[in-house]
Amino acid sequence: MSTPLSERRLANAIRVLAMDAVQQANSGHPGAPMGMADIAEVVWRKFLRHNPVNPAWPNRDRFVLSNGHGSMLLYALLHLSGYDLSLDDLKQFRKLHSKTPGHPEFGYTPGVETTTGPLGQGLANAVGFALAERTLAAQFNRPDFTVIDHFTYCFAGDGCMMEGISHEVASLAGTLGLGKLIVYYDDNGISIDGEVGGWFSDDTEQRFKAYGWQVVRVDGHDTDAITQATEAARADTAQPSLIICKTIIGLGSPNKQGKEDSHGAALGLAEVELVRQVLTWQNAPFELADDIYQEWDAKRTGQAAENTWNERFKQYTEAYPELAAELKRRLAGDLPAGFDELAQGYIDECVQKAETIASRKASQNTLQALGPLLPELLGGSADLAASNLTLWKGAQGVQTQADGNYVYYGVREFGMTAMANGVALHGGFIPYVATFLMFMEYARNAVRMSALMKQRVIHVYTHDSIGLGEDGPTHQPVEQLASLRTTPNLTTWRPADTVETAVAWISALQKTDGPSALIFSRQNLPFQQRTQQQLDDIAKGGYILGYEKGALKAIIIATGSEIDLAMQVYQDLEGIRVVSMPSCEVFMQQAEAYREHVLPKSVRARVAVEASHVDYWWKFVGLDGQVIGMTSYGESAPASDLYAHFGITVDGVKQAVLKVMAH
Amino acid sequence: MSTPLSERRLANAIRVLAMDAVQQANSGHPGAPMGMADIAEVVWRKFLRHNPVNPAWPNRDRFVLSNGHGSMLLYALLHLSGYDLSLDDLKQFRKLHSKTPGHPEFGYTPGVETTTGPLGQGLANAVGFALAERTLAAQFNRPDFTVIDHFTYCFAGDGCMMEGISHEVASLAGTLGLGKLIVYYDDNGISIDGEVGGWFSDDTEQRFKAYGWQVVRVDGHDTDAITQATEAARADTAQPSLIICKTIIGLGSPNKQGKEDSHGAALGLAEVELVRQVLTWQNAPFELADDIYQEWDAKRTGQAAENTWNERFKQYTEAYPELAAELKRRLAGDLPAGFDELAQGYIDECVQKAETIASRKASQNTLQALGPLLPELLGGSADLAASNLTLWKGAQGVQTQADGNYVYYGVREFGMTAMANGVALHGGFIPYVATFLMFMEYARNAVRMSALMKQRVIHVYTHDSIGLGEDGPTHQPVEQLASLRTTPNLTTWRPADTVETAVAWISALQKTDGPSALIFSRQNLPFQQRTQQQLDDIAKGGYILGYEKGALKAIIIATGSEIDLAMQVYQDLEGIRVVSMPSCEVFMQQAEAYREHVLPKSVRARVAVEASHVDYWWKFVGLDGQVIGMTSYGESAPASDLYAHFGITVDGVKQAVLKVMAH
Repeated sequence: MSTPLSERRLANAIRVLAMDAVQQANSGHPGAPMGMADIAEVVWRKFLRHNPVNPAWPNRDRFVLSNGHGSMLLYALLHLSGYDLSLDDLKQFRKLHSKTPGHPEFGYTPGVETTTGPLGQGLANAVGFALAERTLAAQFNRPDFTVIDHFTYCFAGDGCMMEGISHEVASLAGTLGLGKLIVYYDDNGISIDGEVGGWFSDDTEQRFKAYGWQVVRVDGHDTDAITQATEAARADTAQPSLIICKTIIGLGSPNKQGKEDSHGAALGLAEVELVRQVLTWQNAPFELADDIYQEWDAKRTGQAAENTWNERFKQYTEAYPELAAELKRRLAGDLPAGFDELAQGYIDECVQKAETIASRKASQNTLQALGPLLPELLGGSADLAASNLTLWKGAQGVQTQADGNYVYYGVREFGMTAMANGVALHGGFIPYVATFLMFMEYARNAVRMSALMKQRVIHVYTHDSIGLGEDGPTHQPVEQLASLRTTPNLTTWRPADTVETAVAWISALQKTDGPSALIFSRQNLPFQQRTQQQLDDIAKGGYILGYEKGALKAIIIATGSEIDLAMQVYQDLEGIRVVSMPSCEVFMQQAEAYREHVLPKSVRARVAVEASHVDYWWKFVGLDGQVIGMTSYGESAPASDLYAHFGITVDGVKQAVLKVMAH
Repeated sequence: MSTPLSERRLANAIRVLAMDAVQQANSGHPGAPMGMADIAEVVWRKFLRHNPVNPAWPNRDRFVLSNGHGSMLLYALLHLSGYDLSLDDLKQFRKLHSKTPGHPEFGYTPGVETTTGPLGQGLANAVGFALAERTLAAQFNRPDFTVIDHFTYCFAGDGCMMEGISHEVASLAGTLGLGKLIVYYDDNGISIDGEVGGWFSDDTEQRFKAYGWQVVRVDGHDTDAITQATEAARADTAQPSLIICKTIIGLGSPNKQGKEDSHGAALGLAEVELVRQVLTWQNAPFELADDIYQEWDAKRTGQAAENTWNERFKQYTEAYPELAAELKRRLAGDLPAGFDELAQGYIDECVQKAETIASRKASQNTLQALGPLLPELLGGSADLAASNLTLWKGAQGVQTQADGNYVYYGVREFGMTAMANGVALHGGFIPYVATFLMFMEYARNAVRMSALMKQRVIHVYTHDSIGLGEDGPTHQPVEQLASLRTTPNLTTWRPADTVETAVAWISALQKTDGPSALIFSRQNLPFQQRTQQQLDDIAKGGYILGYEKGALKAIIIATGSEIDLAMQVYQDLEGIRVVSMPSCEVFMQQAEAYREHVLPKSVRARVAVEASHVDYWWKFVGLDGQVIGMTSYGESAPASDLYAHFGITVDGVKQAVLKVMAH
């Protein structure tokens, strides 16, 4: 046995790789990797239980780099510990189609657990991971078999700590007592504008203690101290832990360490050379000594850890075959056997009942119908459970029951949504989270992140228009649907009645390559009669709900609460077709022949009706069409007064139709 | 002199008015007004220096109800203290066109300082008020004359405290030491989902102490304690103060107090009757005894306070005539004499220099040119000063110089933006705030609030597309422009070169009825040559930059960085018109004749080009047009590789033009 390399030298391997890759790309952030290298070396070499050979091992510890601009730290760790990420990959840092994009991108790189960069959200994802772990453990572990049992480690920077979302999720993590969450705060005192003292003077220790966290302060370059702090954090399973690591940003760079200069740009060739001297680092860029690799390699220990777990899982499968099969199904993200039948049966039931109820109520009824078959649902609302109607009879708060399936998130829309992203990434769950459609905006970038990462998160947004009435313009969405519908990978549904609501939910549950936004009304929506063909076509996103009487003269396109207005005009006029378009995005994914069948190009007399901003709809009605909708903010008044005030009425639609027909 | 009424009875007047108005509307929130009535009675009767006769008195104390759902608390206070808000107005609570909308709406009601309802933002507005007060005081007070000197009082609820924005602004307020900010936290332990313990167990005292606040705990129904705490808060001018008031929500309602039932719905006629019995309240709904009014009336003392100030201001005017005139101008929101000439001269200079630079750099140059004439500018960036290029030579951080004109906001996009709304509402300043366009999303609802309140806040967003390059999809905007452009009252500009950048800034500064979003590139943009007519037309939002050679065959509409592509195609093909559309919203406000001149209805061969989501542009190109832009997320790579990868190229535009022409 050779003498083990010093830990500092192993950390310096990260520093040099990060510095060299950034230099090669002439773009990137060397400061954080160089500052956090010693912490990373301790966490990854002494504590992180993972298997580079199988990044998908379900019971691996999760590692999140919330300060995602330090991506080269993560890439260096993945490369050194044996993941399928080569030196050539590192040389391609920040190049098109590489496995090493500028920020860690989920799905691009083995071992990257979540996409980070938008500050604070990685921390929220980590809280979601820890919540998922605890909940899944409570649902599946048995006294004699612990099959789910892992830690979540998270690195975070000053930016994460300044962002509001850090408050939301740290507060909730403290209340929930997520003891297996361990966060390392890179307290380097520098942000992009310089020394943080002028704009950030929190006592972060005191702040996190106020949230009920265990807090430990260490020198972030003292590996023994980091080790001891981590042991203390792991030992405290009742509280999440924050390890405040005093570090020097860009450590090793004689002219730039401790300064913002090392944060977000290549050090420069001269400085890179100086770093090599300071660190007494002999190797050329992208060359590493074998003994460095030997010390870092985690493949053997990782595979051994997974083998042990596999053996345990095998015994678990023998003792609890049904539970084991269910856990496998859940982790694979498959819907349960019988789902399609149950779903179809529920749609039939809605058709038979023909209820006129609010779509938020229809949503709750759908949850009630499908929920008992779906233990993977992990629901929640940002303190609006009784308004969003996201509770159902089988919903049990995780607050009172560890194996529950509902989270009372408190008034924390952004934190909730980013946590749900973490829950979805963890596996084993389909999270749904709810607030008023307006307050989607508080969570907006986390909605986008669920779409960017193609995660099955179901965003439930109720109170979807001026139809919410008296609460007024601060609560009445206008431009929000345009924002959701132009978000790539996100599917938005705004159903018109109980049946469309059921189809929307089913479609969202079945969609495995991205999130959905389900948009529901506060007010009652009349039931619509449909043929079997029409019922089948709802899932196509847009379909002919009202076939024209006589020759086709004009088309009205409507969604949700405005379908009723369109159908009233339809009753009045000859030659009018009504197209219900609960999901524009799904409709646009249909074959051109189907789209042409529904909206023939030659018919330019088109009117769109939606109590939302008009601009989205020009796409469907063109330069010769009309849109009945909103161009201003709403007002505070009873809903019916508002519809009249803003001209979203049967007569308004009728006049618009006559106008486009006269053209 | 009659014996003064008990303070409790004066507070009960609020309780009864709130309860009755909510009952009459059968909609609203009685719990917060009834719970905070005692605090309000102390603050408004003993401390708040205001003049109901002149709600615009510049040196009045500011009062913000951050828990805006408790609007009837504020309306009751305004009515009782003598503002122009009658009992009839209260009876119209939550009715169309009333002065008493469901949430306090700025501009609807005399004495309402800001629109609240979206939780946490009122608190942020209040921090903005306090910052504006201190900065304006430092700029205008003289040793012998204190003309700006007021407190900012803010009420906030559990929801405000849970929202992340409360962290951002409380942290910054502590760092800035905004000692004249006094926040009363309605610690009633109830949110919509019930008792908050299950989702909110912060030690809020400890948390705010970690921010450097003075914190006092009181019984929120003990008027002496509230009085003493307020005196302590006023005495500490170095730290903002949080007074944690333990209260009972809905106090006075025998069956609903202390429960979420009293939060968000009318109590019901039977319970309303019981409240009258409990409070021994004799009067019928909307009837109040004269002695109640006498005790509440603040008109006389308010006018006296303003008279004293007016006298002081008169002496100040004599001692410092120029300063006084300048303060008057600033408070009126008028641009300085000579602004138009300076602006025109700067545009001419840009034309002469004909520089090819990034529009973010052009923005900085514009600030540099106009800034010296505009001491009302109060700029800032969310820790991206050197990237957003929002610093100019005359910029001085308020962190180091109390009369400065720049705020280092830290990584706090949402808090920054909502604070800027408060600064604009305060008067005396034109705030501009900056971040990357992507992270507008973190601030999104505050951007909307600036538009809803029609405030002159200038939102500067740089790094506006895939053109930012290697940072990748988390940092590359796609759907954000559609969101901004569909926001009512907001004007979005995406200029193509130095001249359009100057016009955008000038237009934003001149717009007094709403905010602007200025969208700038990271990368260089070539200068475009223009005739005088074209120069004059930039301010119309859209204009013909390239007149077709020969008969008009097709129109290319482009903005910002994509103008260059359009002009290259223009050089290549006959009959092509290029329309530069830096502001779609401003263009749509032009007379129809002008719009027809630029975009003749008969010409359907249209192509729009923008490195942003395509869907916004169908409005301009119709069903026969083409849009070259984004439909997916970006990637991490050098900018030029990305433009090629996504087909936003000269050839891509050319092919699209040929296609629409062939139609």
